[in-house]
Amino acid sequence: MTQTTSLALATALAYHQAWTSQNLDQAMTYIADAITCDAPGAQITGAQQYREFLGRFMTQLTGVETVAAFGDDSTAVLFYYPQTANTSSAPTAECFTVAGGKITRSVLVFDRPSFAPPQP
Amino acid sequence: MTQTTSLALATALAYHQAWTSQNLDQAMTYIADAITCDAPGAQITGAQQYREFLGRFMTQLTGVETVAAFGDDSTAVLFYYPQTANTSSAPTAECFTVAGGKITRSVLVFDRPSFAPPQP
Repeated sequence: MTQTTSLALATALAYHQAWTSQNLDQAMTYIADAITCDAPGAQITGAQQYREFLGRFMTQLTGVETVAAFGDDSTAVLFYYPQTANTSSAPTAECFTVAGGKITRSVLVFDRPSFAPPQP
Repeated sequence: MTQTTSLALATALAYHQAWTSQNLDQAMTYIADAITCDAPGAQITGAQQYREFLGRFMTQLTGVETVAAFGDDSTAVLFYYPQTANTSSAPTAECFTVAGGKITRSVLVFDRPSFAPPQP
Protein backbone atom coordinates (compact mmCIF):
# COMPACT_ATOMS: atom_id res chain seq x y z
CA MET A 1 0.00 0.00 0.00
CA THR A 2 1.21 3.49 -0.85
CA GLN A 3 1.01 5.67 2.25
CA THR A 4 2.18 8.96 3.70
CA THR A 5 1.87 10.05 7.33
CA SER A 6 -0.12 13.05 8.50
CA LEU A 7 -2.43 14.07 11.30
CA ALA A 8 -5.52 13.69 9.14
CA LEU A 9 -4.36 10.38 7.71
CA ALA A 10 -3.76 8.92 11.16
CA THR A 11 -7.40 9.66 12.04
CA ALA A 12 -8.68 8.34 8.71
CA LEU A 13 -6.68 5.11 9.02
CA ALA A 14 -7.84 4.55 12.60
CA TYR A 15 -11.44 5.02 11.43
CA HIS A 16 -10.86 2.74 8.44
CA GLN A 17 -9.30 0.03 10.60
CA ALA A 18 -12.25 0.18 13.00
CA TRP A 19 -15.12 -0.08 10.55
CA THR A 20 -13.44 -2.67 8.34
CA SER A 21 -12.98 -4.75 11.52
CA GLN A 22 -16.75 -4.53 12.15
CA ASN A 23 -16.23 -2.23 15.14
CA LEU A 24 -18.94 0.37 14.55
CA ASP A 25 -18.72 1.95 18.01
CA GLN A 26 -14.96 2.44 17.68
CA ALA A 27 -15.34 3.82 14.15
CA MET A 28 -17.90 6.37 15.31
CA THR A 29 -15.43 7.83 17.86
CA TYR A 30 -13.65 9.38 14.86
CA ILE A 31 -16.82 10.91 13.38
CA ALA A 32 -17.79 14.50 14.20
CA ASP A 33 -21.36 15.07 15.39
CA ALA A 34 -21.99 17.44 12.48
CA ILE A 35 -20.35 15.31 9.78
CA THR A 36 -21.49 15.80 6.22
CA CYS A 37 -20.94 13.07 3.65
CA ASP A 38 -21.41 13.01 -0.11
CA ALA A 39 -22.18 9.36 -0.81
CA PRO A 40 -23.35 7.87 -4.13
CA GLY A 41 -26.96 8.95 -4.46
CA ALA A 42 -27.16 10.24 -0.87
CA GLN A 43 -26.31 13.35 1.13
CA ILE A 44 -25.70 12.32 4.73
CA THR A 45 -25.81 14.84 7.58
CA GLY A 46 -25.00 14.21 11.21
CA ALA A 47 -23.45 11.34 13.11
CA GLN A 48 -26.68 9.38 13.65
CA GLN A 49 -27.52 9.27 9.93
CA TYR A 50 -23.89 8.45 9.16
CA ARG A 51 -23.90 5.61 11.67
CA GLU A 52 -26.97 4.05 10.02
CA PHE A 53 -25.38 4.35 6.57
CA LEU A 54 -22.04 2.91 7.68
CA GLY A 55 -23.74 0.11 9.61
CA ARG A 56 -25.57 -1.02 6.46
CA PHE A 57 -22.36 -0.95 4.39
CA MET A 58 -20.45 -2.82 7.11
CA THR A 59 -22.84 -5.77 7.15
CA GLN A 60 -21.94 -6.46 3.51
CA LEU A 61 -18.18 -6.36 4.11
CA THR A 62 -16.22 -9.60 4.31
CA GLY A 63 -12.75 -8.09 3.91
CA VAL A 64 -10.81 -5.18 2.44
CA GLU A 65 -7.68 -4.54 0.39
CA THR A 66 -6.39 -1.03 0.94
CA VAL A 67 -4.21 0.21 -1.93
CA ALA A 68 -3.39 3.88 -1.34
CA ALA A 69 -3.48 6.34 1.54
CA PHE A 70 -2.30 9.95 1.55
CA GLY A 71 -2.89 12.98 3.69
CA ASP A 72 -1.78 16.31 5.09
CA ASP A 73 -2.78 18.18 8.24
CA SER A 74 -6.45 18.50 7.33
CA THR A 75 -7.24 16.09 4.48
CA ALA A 76 -6.76 12.37 3.94
CA VAL A 77 -7.60 10.10 1.02
CA LEU A 78 -7.97 6.32 0.86
CA PHE A 79 -8.40 3.89 -2.05
CA TYR A 80 -9.49 0.35 -1.26
CA TYR A 81 -11.28 -2.67 -2.63
CA PRO A 82 -14.11 -3.73 -0.32
CA GLN A 83 -14.76 -7.45 -0.43
CA THR A 84 -18.43 -8.45 -0.40
CA ALA A 85 -20.44 -11.47 -1.47
CA ASN A 86 -20.89 -9.84 -4.88
CA THR A 87 -17.46 -8.38 -5.70
CA SER A 88 -13.91 -7.84 -4.59
CA SER A 89 -12.78 -5.95 -7.70
CA ALA A 90 -14.76 -2.70 -7.41
CA PRO A 91 -12.65 0.13 -6.00
CA THR A 92 -13.88 2.67 -3.45
CA ALA A 93 -12.29 6.03 -2.66
CA GLU A 94 -12.80 8.37 0.27
CA CYS A 95 -11.60 11.92 0.85
CA PHE A 96 -11.83 13.00 4.51
CA THR A 97 -11.65 16.43 6.07
CA VAL A 98 -10.36 16.12 9.64
CA ALA A 99 -10.31 18.65 12.49
CA GLY A 100 -9.39 17.97 16.09
CA GLY A 101 -9.07 14.24 15.48
CA LYS A 102 -12.62 13.95 14.08
CA ILE A 103 -13.82 13.48 10.52
CA THR A 104 -16.02 16.49 9.72
CA ARG A 105 -16.60 15.80 6.05
CA SER A 106 -16.34 12.76 3.80
CA VAL A 107 -16.57 12.39 0.06
CA LEU A 108 -17.28 8.72 -0.60
CA VAL A 109 -17.01 7.41 -4.16
CA PHE A 110 -18.00 4.00 -5.47
CA ASP A 111 -19.98 2.69 -8.41
CA ARG A 112 -23.32 1.39 -7.08
CA PRO A 113 -23.91 -1.07 -9.98
CA SER A 114 -20.54 -2.75 -9.33
CA PHE A 115 -21.71 -3.69 -5.82
CA ALA A 116 -25.20 -4.81 -6.84
CA PRO A 117 -26.12 -8.49 -6.85
CA PRO A 118 -25.51 -10.20 -10.21
CA GLN A 119 -28.42 -9.91 -12.61
CA PRO A 120 -30.26 -13.21 -13.16
CA MET B 1 -7.51 22.34 -3.39
CA THR B 2 -5.40 20.17 -1.08
CA GLN B 3 -2.21 19.19 -2.85
CA THR B 4 1.24 17.76 -2.27
CA THR B 5 4.10 17.69 -4.78
CA SER B 6 5.70 14.53 -6.13
CA LEU B 7 7.03 13.11 -9.36
CA ALA B 8 3.92 11.01 -9.91
CA LEU B 9 1.58 13.84 -9.00
CA ALA B 10 3.25 16.21 -11.48
CA THR B 11 2.52 13.72 -14.26
CA ALA B 12 -1.04 13.10 -13.05
CA LEU B 13 -1.80 16.82 -12.83
CA ALA B 14 -0.37 17.50 -16.29
CA TYR B 15 -2.56 14.70 -17.66
CA HIS B 16 -5.59 15.99 -15.73
CA GLN B 17 -5.05 19.55 -16.98
CA ALA B 18 -4.80 18.32 -20.57
CA TRP B 19 -7.92 16.18 -20.75
CA THR B 20 -10.08 18.56 -18.76
CA SER B 21 -9.03 21.24 -21.27
CA GLN B 22 -10.30 18.99 -24.09
CA ASN B 23 -6.74 18.35 -25.31
CA LEU B 24 -6.88 14.61 -25.96
CA ASP B 25 -3.59 14.44 -27.89
CA GLN B 26 -1.72 16.19 -25.09
CA ALA B 27 -3.38 14.01 -22.45
CA MET B 28 -2.32 10.85 -24.28
CA THR B 29 1.36 11.86 -24.13
CA TYR B 30 1.20 10.95 -20.41
CA ILE B 31 -0.36 7.53 -21.00
CA ALA B 32 1.84 4.43 -21.27
CA ASP B 33 1.25 2.19 -24.31
CA ALA B 34 0.46 -0.75 -22.03
CA ILE B 35 -1.77 1.15 -19.59
CA THR B 36 -4.33 -0.83 -17.65
CA CYS B 37 -7.35 0.90 -16.17
CA ASP B 38 -10.06 -0.32 -13.78
CA ALA B 39 -13.06 1.84 -14.74
CA PRO B 40 -16.64 1.40 -13.51
CA GLY B 41 -17.94 -1.65 -15.33
CA ALA B 42 -14.93 -1.80 -17.70
CA GLN B 43 -11.40 -3.15 -17.76
CA ILE B 44 -9.38 -1.07 -20.21
CA THR B 45 -6.09 -2.31 -21.65
CA GLY B 46 -3.73 -0.40 -23.91
CA ALA B 47 -3.46 3.21 -25.01
CA GLN B 48 -5.81 2.91 -27.99
CA GLN B 49 -8.68 1.54 -25.92
CA TYR B 50 -7.95 4.12 -23.22
CA ARG B 51 -8.01 6.93 -25.77
CA GLU B 52 -11.46 5.87 -26.98
CA PHE B 53 -12.76 5.67 -23.41
CA LEU B 54 -11.31 9.05 -22.41
CA GLY B 55 -12.52 10.66 -25.61
CA ARG B 56 -16.11 9.63 -24.84
CA PHE B 57 -15.87 10.94 -21.26
CA MET B 58 -14.32 14.22 -22.47
CA THR B 59 -17.17 15.05 -24.80
CA GLN B 60 -19.53 15.16 -21.79
CA LEU B 61 -17.27 17.47 -19.76
CA THR B 62 -18.13 21.15 -19.47
CA GLY B 63 -15.82 21.95 -16.54
CA VAL B 64 -14.14 20.50 -13.48
CA GLU B 65 -13.61 21.34 -9.82
CA THR B 66 -10.53 19.56 -8.45
CA VAL B 67 -10.63 19.17 -4.67
CA ALA B 68 -7.68 17.02 -3.60
CA ALA B 69 -4.40 15.83 -5.08
CA PHE B 70 -1.68 13.79 -3.38
CA GLY B 71 1.23 11.68 -4.49
CA ASP B 72 4.64 10.20 -3.92
CA ASP B 73 7.31 8.98 -6.33
CA SER B 74 5.16 6.32 -7.97
CA THR B 75 1.51 6.94 -7.07
CA ALA B 76 -0.84 9.93 -7.35
CA VAL B 77 -4.48 10.39 -6.40
CA LEU B 78 -6.99 13.02 -7.50
CA PHE B 79 -10.51 13.84 -6.34
CA TYR B 80 -12.62 16.09 -8.52
CA TYR B 81 -16.16 16.99 -9.50
CA PRO B 82 -16.64 16.71 -13.27
CA GLN B 83 -19.23 19.14 -14.58
CA THR B 84 -21.56 17.73 -17.23
CA ALA B 85 -25.01 18.57 -18.57
CA ASN B 86 -26.46 16.16 -15.98
CA THR B 87 -24.50 16.87 -12.79
CA SER B 88 -21.74 18.86 -11.14
CA SER B 89 -22.13 17.28 -7.69
CA ALA B 90 -20.94 13.70 -8.34
CA PRO B 91 -17.33 13.16 -7.25
CA THR B 92 -14.76 11.17 -9.20
CA ALA B 93 -11.50 9.75 -7.87
CA GLU B 94 -8.45 8.43 -9.69
CA CYS B 95 -5.41 6.58 -8.40
CA PHE B 96 -2.50 6.58 -10.87
CA THR B 97 0.63 4.48 -10.98
CA VAL B 98 3.38 6.42 -12.78
CA ALA B 99 6.74 5.26 -14.13
CA GLY B 100 9.12 7.26 -16.29
CA GLY B 101 6.66 10.13 -16.62
CA LYS B 102 3.89 7.89 -17.99
CA ILE B 103 0.73 6.60 -16.35
CA THR B 104 0.96 2.81 -16.41
CA ARG B 105 -2.12 2.02 -14.35
CA SER B 106 -5.25 3.91 -13.36
CA VAL B 107 -8.01 3.07 -10.93
CA LEU B 108 -10.95 5.28 -11.88
CA VAL B 109 -13.90 5.51 -9.49
CA PHE B 110 -17.25 7.17 -10.08
CA ASP B 111 -20.88 6.23 -9.61
CA ARG B 112 -22.39 5.60 -13.04
CA PRO B 113 -26.00 6.36 -12.01
CA SER B 114 -24.97 9.80 -10.73
CA PHE B 115 -23.82 10.75 -14.24
CA ALA B 116 -26.81 9.27 -16.08
CA PRO B 117 -29.44 11.53 -17.64
CA PRO B 118 -32.33 12.30 -15.29
CA GLN B 119 -35.12 9.73 -15.40
CA PRO B 120 -38.29 11.01 -17.05
